[in-house]
Amino acid sequence: MIETINLAQKFSLIHEYWSPRIAGELNDAYIKLARLRGEFLWHQHEREDELFLVVKGTLRIRLCGRDIEVGEGEFVIIPRGVEHMPVAEEEVLVLLLEPKSTVNTGDAGGERTVGEQWV
Amino acid sequence: MIETINLAQKFSLIHEYWSPRIAGELNDAYIKLARLRGEFLWHQHEREDELFLVVKGTLRIRLCGRDIEVGEGEFVIIPRGVEHMPVAEEEVLVLLLEPKSTVNTGDAGGERTVGEQWV
Repeated sequence: MIETINLAQKFSLIHEYWSPRIAGELNDAYIKLARLRGEFLWHQHEREDELFLVVKGTLRIRLCGRDIEVGEGEFVIIPRGVEHMPVAEEEVLVLLLEPKSTVNTGDAGGERTVGEQWV
Repeated sequence: MIETINLAQKFSLIHEYWSPRIAGELNDAYIKLARLRGEFLWHQHEREDELFLVVKGTLRIRLCGRDIEVGEGEFVIIPRGVEHMPVAEEEVLVLLLEPKSTVNTGDAGGERTVGEQWV
């Protein structure tokens, strides 16, 4: 089934923070949508590069030694193996692209890990 | 080098229609940006699913038997093997995600085929 996905409509269904939901799949990757607020945790993905495209707000991504800011209409790709911590001082809506194998908490694991859920 | 990519800034550097430019790479895929106007051509990609995320305008994608409309803030995934023809009645700015192996004209080939170029 080929269908148009409206980001605003999908985001309106996501109420939980830091809980990415799958909105599409292609070539062994998922498009995920997430609502972010506050700090996440330091982690890295051993085998997966990860794209953050900011749809609303400004996302700060802490790296070892510097911070990156990603505003609305901007994206950043965090290569595999790079430690990072996303921080959303105000609410941020973000589109993620990552291999299906990617776990949100990467090597850190723990209680903030979420499973595969479609929106 | 990890850097924030601003879509508007990158699009301002793209003047040619139907000539996708690479703006990022991750996991054997490219993020490409394209300025579209008019009709493209019927084609399919044998092994690659392709994502169209519309940043500005409204993209019509003709499929066999029906058309799909993709507006600003919407995306669609065209699975491998599905014949399609993008049409932009007015100018459209689109972000594409596709495996590095993807050729813009798919199986159709011909003079509208473009090579790999970064923006």
